[in-house]
Amino acid sequence: MKVAIFFGSKSDTDVMKGAAKALKEFGVDYKAFVLSAHRVPEKLEETLKTIENENYEVIIAGAGLAAHLPGVIASQTIIPVIGVPVNAALNGLDALYSIVQMPKSIPVATVGINNSYNAGMLAVEMLSIKYPELKEKLVNFRIEMKQKFIQENGEGVEL
Amino acid sequence: MKVAIFFGSKSDTDVMKGAAKALKEFGVDYKAFVLSAHRVPEKLEETLKTIENENYEVIIAGAGLAAHLPGVIASQTIIPVIGVPVNAALNGLDALYSIVQMPKSIPVATVGINNSYNAGMLAVEMLSIKYPELKEKLVNFRIEMKQKFIQENGEGVEL
Amino acid sequence: MKVAIFFGSKSDTDVMKGAAKALKEFGVDYKAFVLSAHRVPEKLEETLKTIENENYEVIIAGAGLAAHLPGVIASQTIIPVIGVPVNAALNGLDALYSIVQMPKSIPVATVGINNSYNAGMLAVEMLSIKYPELKEKLVNFRIEMKQKFIQENGEGVEL
Amino acid sequence: MKVAIFFGSKSDTDVMKGAAKALKEFGVDYKAFVLSAHRVPEKLEETLKTIENENYEVIIAGAGLAAHLPGVIASQTIIPVIGVPVNAALNGLDALYSIVQMPKSIPVATVGINNSYNAGMLAVEMLSIKYPELKEKLVNFRIEMKQKFIQENGEGVEL
Amino acid sequence: MKVAIFFGSKSDTDVMKGAAKALKEFGVDYKAFVLSAHRVPEKLEETLKTIENENYEVIIAGAGLAAHLPGVIASQTIIPVIGVPVNAALNGLDALYSIVQMPKSIPVATVGINNSYNAGMLAVEMLSIKYPELKEKLVNFRIEMKQKFIQENGEGVEL
Amino acid sequence: MKVAIFFGSKSDTDVMKGAAKALKEFGVDYKAFVLSAHRVPEKLEETLKTIENENYEVIIAGAGLAAHLPGVIASQTIIPVIGVPVNAALNGLDALYSIVQMPKSIPVATVGINNSYNAGMLAVEMLSIKYPELKEKLVNFRIEMKQKFIQENGEGVEL
Amino acid sequence: MKVAIFFGSKSDTDVMKGAAKALKEFGVDYKAFVLSAHRVPEKLEETLKTIENENYEVIIAGAGLAAHLPGVIASQTIIPVIGVPVNAALNGLDALYSIVQMPKSIPVATVGINNSYNAGMLAVEMLSIKYPELKEKLVNFRIEMKQKFIQENGEGVEL
Amino acid sequence: MKVAIFFGSKSDTDVMKGAAKALKEFGVDYKAFVLSAHRVPEKLEETLKTIENENYEVIIAGAGLAAHLPGVIASQTIIPVIGVPVNAALNGLDALYSIVQMPKSIPVATVGINNSYNAGMLAVEMLSIKYPELKEKLVNFRIEMKQKFIQENGEGVEL
Repeated sequence: MKVAIFFGSKSDTDVMKGAAKALKEFGVDYKAFVLSAHRVPEKLEETLKTIENENYEVIIAGAGLAAHLPGVIASQTIIPVIGVPVNAALNGLDALYSIVQMPKSIPVATVGINNSYNAGMLAVEMLSIKYPELKEKLVNFRIEMKQKFIQENGEGVEL
Repeated sequence: MKVAIFFGSKSDTDVMKGAAKALKEFGVDYKAFVLSAHRVPEKLEETLKTIENENYEVIIAGAGLAAHLPGVIASQTIIPVIGVPVNAALNGLDALYSIVQMPKSIPVATVGINNSYNAGMLAVEMLSIKYPELKEKLVNFRIEMKQKFIQENGEGVEL
Repeated sequence: MKVAIFFGSKSDTDVMKGAAKALKEFGVDYKAFVLSAHRVPEKLEETLKTIENENYEVIIAGAGLAAHLPGVIASQTIIPVIGVPVNAALNGLDALYSIVQMPKSIPVATVGINNSYNAGMLAVEMLSIKYPELKEKLVNFRIEMKQKFIQENGEGVEL
Repeated sequence: MKVAIFFGSKSDTDVMKGAAKALKEFGVDYKAFVLSAHRVPEKLEETLKTIENENYEVIIAGAGLAAHLPGVIASQTIIPVIGVPVNAALNGLDALYSIVQMPKSIPVATVGINNSYNAGMLAVEMLSIKYPELKEKLVNFRIEMKQKFIQENGEGVEL
Repeated sequence: MKVAIFFGSKSDTDVMKGAAKALKEFGVDYKAFVLSAHRVPEKLEETLKTIENENYEVIIAGAGLAAHLPGVIASQTIIPVIGVPVNAALNGLDALYSIVQMPKSIPVATVGINNSYNAGMLAVEMLSIKYPELKEKLVNFRIEMKQKFIQENGEGVEL
Repeated sequence: MKVAIFFGSKSDTDVMKGAAKALKEFGVDYKAFVLSAHRVPEKLEETLKTIENENYEVIIAGAGLAAHLPGVIASQTIIPVIGVPVNAALNGLDALYSIVQMPKSIPVATVGINNSYNAGMLAVEMLSIKYPELKEKLVNFRIEMKQKFIQENGEGVEL
Repeated sequence: MKVAIFFGSKSDTDVMKGAAKALKEFGVDYKAFVLSAHRVPEKLEETLKTIENENYEVIIAGAGLAAHLPGVIASQTIIPVIGVPVNAALNGLDALYSIVQMPKSIPVATVGINNSYNAGMLAVEMLSIKYPELKEKLVNFRIEMKQKFIQENGEGVEL
Repeated sequence: MKVAIFFGSKSDTDVMKGAAKALKEFGVDYKAFVLSAHRVPEKLEETLKTIENENYEVIIAGAGLAAHLPGVIASQTIIPVIGVPVNAALNGLDALYSIVQMPKSIPVATVGINNSYNAGMLAVEMLSIKYPELKEKLVNFRIEMKQKFIQENGEGVEL
């Protein structure tokens, strides 16, 4: 169970931490790479080959502006790619459109703007297709999430 | 290898056919349901339970307008959910935002507006984590896609 | 005269206080619940049943991002639902579209972004259909609002 | 049980028919007026007074472009006003913003773009606070809607 | 030469000061009123009548959100109305659309978001049709503006 | 009483006819020019000088896309300029922003997208500051508009 | 003087013809390739190398949706790249943002949506830096464009 | 090798510094001018003539709001013009549309919002068509950029 996390610039580190957090909560190994589709395309290509050889099973890719990274990765591998639009301008709409509007045949599984935690969660869900222990963990996660939510918010709040 | 396809209204049928097409190309079984999160929530809940019991492994859900269907499904199951924003107004932006901007912990893997074919492809990629035969088919699909693309478009075109 | 106020996350508390303020001004009882359509759907369903049994007459529901809460509530009850789009991203446009663009037959009465005070006011107006004392209070509220407005702003201001 | 329907221009008639349709389905009386906030403000004011004297209990108002009609009506009465943004330009976003973004204290209950049927439904829900027979009809409407939906769409569809 | 300035809320005062500044620079008299189209419609109507009787020749009206004030004024007078969209939400797009997209026959002369100074300038230009002394002042203003601009910015700047 | 109408391309002719229509209704003389700010800037400059010498009192300018024409004209004359955003792409938003968002000191009086009739009306209102006969005509126009509106739409319509 | 034109799909042919038209008018050689950044990335890479070896001096690249083609090309060559956003959804805004919002150091010279003719013109202008004969042709083009514009539109038009 | 940089207001200085930075890195001479298309059109015209006479080969022009400067310059010269949309309102969308959506025949090479560094880079790329030494420098710049990127980000980062 290994997930590779890519993002295009060191400045995206804080936004992308959520992905790592979710994966850690589920005991899924991951490795993170700062690699730009535009600045170091050869290095990206090379790293993707290593990733494939080392049997990574899901890729998370975050980028802002004309966010090509997730789509460029998706064009070079058949490993499922989860895209995280990072808000660097235009409230993140440029990144969202650049990631989600992929052409026929090369999908990117897009999550919400800056919502890398959900990218991690989605990776876990994808892996759970294969790994029954993750399915169980996900079921428990939901149960705990619900219990915690109800504990915290009780039977009505002050307003 | 079973995928469940949901959509909120019969009027979405044409848009959603692409998902079925992609799944057929890869020999993945699917079943399609017209079920609205708003009009028949109990039936949706019931069908989701059946889907889980019958070990469906990926869910595709398409909807337009205030497109709650994918997110509502995601809140009731840990099976990964792929969301297809259907353009019924506002060029599909209402559906896109309603699907992709899910809150922390409950992701929906969103694809492009009206792009249900990519939802099918993404489902295949997700399943390929578990099923090596799909991985092989995906590799071959890409090879054939490339060959066909190059054949059709040659070494330069008239303009 | 009882209004139920729902919102999806404790972080929406400040935005939602306006609803309570308006209801207090008109002496309308309310109870507030933090309940997420995505995280605790069963608890939401259960609470809605209680709400119905206790004869609540209007529901106010606020949510941000892919703001499904008002629509999900509307799909489970015939009590009129007032939706408050909360600005958590995209200036609140994602929440606005997710709330207002409901499909045929299941309306949500949407007010302005972050404008929960108006949700409270609208609840009072809805209740005034039945309760003549509220109609009178509304008429007086308008009269006082006008007097206060004119007092404060006089016959012309410095600029 | 009487609802007044206003719209700003004869060209909105087709869009606004949905409101009448919903009200007829529930046996609610209505009267429709073409009255522009900008072209005949005095006539609008006068008609609103008649409406109030004749004890209309809900107002539906549809308008396109800089859609002031619902808000202008709301400023002159305490009867709850439901606003229908009509798409006459910009996919209806100009009308949506002009209707939903009302200032503090003067709410308009906004429904989806061109979705006058939901305005009718919302009017019925509001009236049902007072009239138990409407509550019953609404419950039955939902039951029939669900039955019809399930009959039409069955246990799965061809795709 | 008299201009009336209206705005819907005391909170718009800072934004609207630019209009007064421009008018002062050209020696045009003005009077400013805080008057809301929604909160005090009768007072607005009454003040507009006074304005007309006192031969005001141009009206400037600023408002935010569902900015009906300029359009409502335009519907009640034939004095030309200049609208200033005030940014109170959505970067001011709601106000811009609510002001500029007026229906046929009732125009509002709209200037840029928060740009009340230009509203003042436009009022001066309108008045200059009648008052030759203003035409001269405008010509001089342009000459001085150009001289000042060139003095300040010279024949090239450091970068 | 003379108005000059400019537009950037013959393809805008139909959209711009509304301006001529309004001016004719009020007996205001006008002359129309197809002149592009980008293609024939010198000819535009030259024509503007003629316009000034011939004492035109208001300018209407329509343009689509990066609609610079109204702003470029405004930078070369102190005659008030009314801008008409023509929808040639992006629903006319590019033209609207290019016209309305003018910098400090050089205003353009912007009307609704494609709404050249209102540009004509606004020109008449501006001229009425100087010409009492136009003021009278405007008052009558409003009276007739109201009468016609009420005649056509009566005391309620079928829906 | 050689320009390479790339576009991502045969369906873009009509939109891209304008680029060829402009180049032909100036006697600039070009070759056109249908090559997708996502479907045939290796073929694109290979073709770009040929292009570089054959001393092409400007590249024009058109694409719709998540339009990565121009940016991906720019990341692999230092030849200046002109990007044409093709409207395939969202009025072309997705393509515009995906092309123009490139990160620091890897620019794409973006022209208007569907405006491939301007891409051709811009290529000619870029080449004219080196080739004086093109400079002359551009000067003449402008002169003729102006003459033709004035001939066609004369000293005023009917409206 | 000389580049002229124009911008419309001293307040754009910080945003425009990036252009100078890029040009300095490549040893390209430049001169910067603050010149507004709207406030000092004659001075702009005059300076453009000087620029042409002194054989400047590329022009960079930055502007915010209704950003006419790049297009107005492009209409007066055949030197290629690079436009930088400056964010002064609406997240820079007004400036972007005003710059990129130029009409047929008069292109502006638009770069990302506030991204003047890329305007400088693009100018260098354009000049490299003529100057082989710049081509070499660009190749080296890319090599160094890649080395630096990889050094800084290594073979994976902490997350």
